[in-house]
Parts: sequence; C-alpha cells; structure tokens
Amino acid sequence: MRIGVDVMGGDHAPQATMNGVAMVLPHLAPDEHLVLYGHEATIRQHLADCIADERIHIVPTSEVIAMDEHPTKAFSRKQGSSMVRGFMNLGADQIDGFASAGNTGAVMVGAMMVVKQIPGVIRPALATCLPVGEHNSNVLLDVGLNPDCRPDVLYQYGILGSLYAKHTLSIDNPRVALINIGQEETKGNLVVKNAYELMKETADFNFVGNVEGGHFFSKDKADVLVCDGFVGNVVLKMAESFYHLMRSDLPNSPVVNRFNPERYGGTPVLGVNKPVIKAHGASSAKAIMNMILQTREVIKSNLCEQIRQTFS
Amino acid sequence: MRIGVDVMGGDHAPQATMNGVAMVLPHLAPDEHLVLYGHEATIRQHLADCIADERIHIVPTSEVIAMDEHPTKAFSRKQGSSMVRGFMNLGADQIDGFASAGNTGAVMVGAMMVVKQIPGVIRPALATCLPVGEHNSNVLLDVGLNPDCRPDVLYQYGILGSLYAKHTLSIDNPRVALINIGQEETKGNLVVKNAYELMKETADFNFVGNVEGGHFFSKDKADVLVCDGFVGNVVLKMAESFYHLMRSDLPNSPVVNRFNPERYGGTPVLGVNKPVIKAHGASSAKAIMNMILQTREVIKSNLCEQIRQTFS
Repeated sequence: MRIGVDVMGGDHAPQATMNGVAMVLPHLAPDEHLVLYGHEATIRQHLADCIADERIHIVPTSEVIAMDEHPTKAFSRKQGSSMVRGFMNLGADQIDGFASAGNTGAVMVGAMMVVKQIPGVIRPALATCLPVGEHNSNVLLDVGLNPDCRPDVLYQYGILGSLYAKHTLSIDNPRVALINIGQEETKGNLVVKNAYELMKETADFNFVGNVEGGHFFSKDKADVLVCDGFVGNVVLKMAESFYHLMRSDLPNSPVVNRFNPERYGGTPVLGVNKPVIKAHGASSAKAIMNMILQTREVIKSNLCEQIRQTFS
Repeated sequence: MRIGVDVMGGDHAPQATMNGVAMVLPHLAPDEHLVLYGHEATIRQHLADCIADERIHIVPTSEVIAMDEHPTKAFSRKQGSSMVRGFMNLGADQIDGFASAGNTGAVMVGAMMVVKQIPGVIRPALATCLPVGEHNSNVLLDVGLNPDCRPDVLYQYGILGSLYAKHTLSIDNPRVALINIGQEETKGNLVVKNAYELMKETADFNFVGNVEGGHFFSKDKADVLVCDGFVGNVVLKMAESFYHLMRSDLPNSPVVNRFNPERYGGTPVLGVNKPVIKAHGASSAKAIMNMILQTREVIKSNLCEQIRQTFS
C-alpha cells in the first residue's frame, strides 16, 4: 500500500506534517509505504532520523498552494506543487490514496477534476466522525461541500454514509438518520421533509427516521447522521469550539479530550473514485498521524470500490 | 406589573412550576405580581407557605393542554385550560406578559392568534441566549419557529435580535452577524448569500458580516447571531446535549455549568404584540424561576413597543 501525503499543505506545514509522519511510522506495517510530496531537502533534514526507513519515499516538489489561494486558479497554475503532484499520482494509480491538510478548495478541485466523481453520485460529501463515549463514533455528513442539498442528494448521503460506517468503521447494518428539528415525519424544512419521503421506504440503507441536535454524540438512535453541508459545517465547527472552550478550563478531563479534533484525523471525500482525505488546516502532528492512519483504513476497506459497485 | 404563569404546562408541571414560583418570590419587587393559571386547590395546597403573599393571584382553570396534543385543535377546544386562559388575559391586557413551559405549538397558536404579530414583521422568531464567559450572552435567533427562511426574514431577524440585545440585555449598539460556513461574502447557501446582500449596507442594525459555527460562545465578532430556525434549533439542542454529556463526568465544573439550560429560563417570541416567553418543556423549578425573571425583563424593557415603533 502506498499512502500519499501532502507535506506542504496546512497552517503548520511542513513541520507538523513531518512530525506526524515520524509519529505514524511505528504504527504502519512493513508493506505500508508513505509517499511524501514536498520540498526534498527540508524533508531529508527534518526526518533525518527515519529517512532511511524503506517505507518512506519522497516526490520532490517545487511549489506550494497557499491556504488562501483561489483553488481552481492555483490548481491549474501550480503544476509543480505538492498538492497537484499528489493528485496526479493518485489519478495515475501510483499511490493508493492521498491525504492533505492544505487548501480545502484545492483538495476538492483535485478530487473532482483529477480523481473524479463515481458515476451515479450526484454530489460527493465530506464525512466526519463524532465521538460517542470512549470508543465509538457516529458518522456525520455532509460537513461542508454542499451547502444547498436537494432531497435526492441527502438520500445519496444516506447510502454513502452507510457504506463508510460499514466498511471503514466496521458498524454492522448502520442505522441512518436524518438530522431534523423534531422526530415526527412532518417536521423540518421543505428539503428535509422531501428527503424523509424518499428515505422512509428505502431498501438502500437502514433508515431509522429523524433525530434532533441532541443526538450527535449518542448511539441511542443512529450511527450515521445526514444533513446538508451548511448544517454539518456549523455543527462541526461548534463541536470544535466547545472542545477549545472546555479544554482551557479542564485541560486534563478525558471526557473533554474525546472531542479533541486531533483524534479524528480528517474527513474522507465520499463519492470520488479514489481515497482522498482532507485534514483540518490547523492540524497538529498528532492530527496528521491520525489523518494518515485514517487514509490507510479507507484504502484497506476498499471503500471507493464498494461505493462504485453500489452506484453501478 | 402582572406576570402570567402557566402552572400546568411542562413535563414536570405543576410541581416544577409551583416550586419555581416559590423560588422567584424573594427576587420580585413589591409591585411585581404573579398571576398563576392552574388548578386552584393544587396551587393553594402546594404553595401554602407563600399563598398569603399579596403578589400571588390565582386564576382557576379546569383543563390542561398536554405536551403532545395537536396545538391548534387543543387551543380551540380547551378554552378552560391554563394556556388559553393565560393568552386570553394577555390579549385583554389583564396581565403584562405570559410565560409557559407547555406545548410549544400551543404557545405559538396563542402568540399568533390571540396576541398577534406586530404589523410589518413577516415572521416572529424564538430568540435564545448563549453563554459567553462567566457573565455575558450572545443572542441566537431563530431557534425553531421557521425552518425555511427567506432572505428578508433573516434580515428582519437582524432587527429583532438587535432590539432584544439592546433593550433587554443592555448591549449597546449590538453587532449582528449571519451564521455561515465561511467568513467571506461569497460563502454559504443561496438564502444566506442573498441575506448577506440585503444586510451588508443596512442602517437598520450594526451588521458585521458572517461568522462560523465556532463563534457561538465568543464575543470576538458579534453579539447577535442570525440563522434560520432549522440551524438554530439544531445548534441549541446540540449545546444542551453537550452540557448533559459533560455534566455527568464533570458535575462540579463552573465552565460546564455555564451551559446549564436551567440558567436561560426561556425564549421570548420576538415580533408579537405582547411579551410571550416559552420555556423548555423539561424545565426544572430553577428554570421556571429564570423564565419568570426573564419575562419580567422583557416586560420592563418595553421590548414589544420598541419593536412596534421600529416596524411602524
């Protein structure tokens, strides 16, 4: 397995990425290789202690797409950047997955233009994991790709989230719920009411009805929570801000630390042909380590092929 | 001042309401009266210790609108209920405001059919306060009345939230922000982008642009946060669930306790002619006490008249 890593993308890159690479090595099997896209001399110097590891490969790159650059323009102009080189290699099957903490828009350009959508998928989604208790997770999608979703897009998110939960998180027959403002079928905005109509008799996934905002961190009702990218993004950022608020007063609380975004590594882009994982721009070394481990799981689970078969 | 209280509404009514009444009495001035709508014998027995207080008045009622009843039907059929009697008295100026932890839909029927919208207000909103640090609050609206909002409705929420923050929370020249998934003007869903266009040059309130989901509990950018009732409701319920999650592991933490919904008493219905305050169905005695104190503040601040003048 070859996991591609954008060393230059992210608010704290390249240091945080390189530290994350060093941290993840002991967790990787002998045949799990890392392909690092970035400035070669910097990587060789910083990773001097582990550069002799046979699982590390460097693809030297000469440019960086900055966090605030216009995604489409940067992607087309900076062909020598770590981001573009990574996506090109992924498109050409030279790596099995690509992970980046860089410019979100540019990651999406790469995912859509180079890797491309799986036929039948209307809109890919970003899925994140939310902590439930000490050891479990719920899947939340979309967390920001599509702020305006049609009912049939929300319906497909049920399929995508269900496949992700099943194949990557090993949740058997995952229960899929629609985020709503009441449990009753008649509740919600127009889009959600129509999505409910599409979902309620489905055989494509295990639909369990509506859940409210109080169910994000609970397994009482569902394993996969579907909403549009507007709601999902607000929820995700609110959860992060809660963590930061609590941590400053309760730095050693395990219950608070469960919400540490570092633990969740990144969000896979579901519905494109190959594994693409986007980590938080502010990722620390630990977050990068988890991003890489998560990319490995998405590759190992053969999730993209599972999605392709389902939509074919 | 005469504050009407629905003794019979709420998951823990009438006990929690009556205990809340007993708790609030020491905080009320000699001319701040409570008009209690409920079963007379029950109230007299339970409040035996304070029933002689000259500020307590009972309006005996014979029926109760249950939490799960159909709001419109229940409101028209149960004319002898605490809820209907309270609204009728409010409409006839026999009380100065009405507070209930009962059936939300029925409260809205009373607010819209008896008290009625202020002319010019397209849609009333439910506004809640979110904790910021130890002593401050942000206003969030709408938290559930209107899951589908047009851009001009969001615009009016800017006005309503601003007046509430100014007159009831004493925030001078409140900064109003639009909840969005990015700070840039071009971000968001179609409705929010159009709302931004309406707001950006406004002289009706102090618009400061977009804020993301990480700003709910911060004064860095804004005092009033505007969103549709779908997003607001999800956010509010998520904040409550966070509190319950944290409290079970950290029962004595002051930072956790800040998020205790009991502290926030209730949400005023902004945009109707008289003070109507809806408290959480699950309100405890302490939450009822705060609901009554909040109703007092809305009455004292003359908020409804301020809104009426602004929209006239």
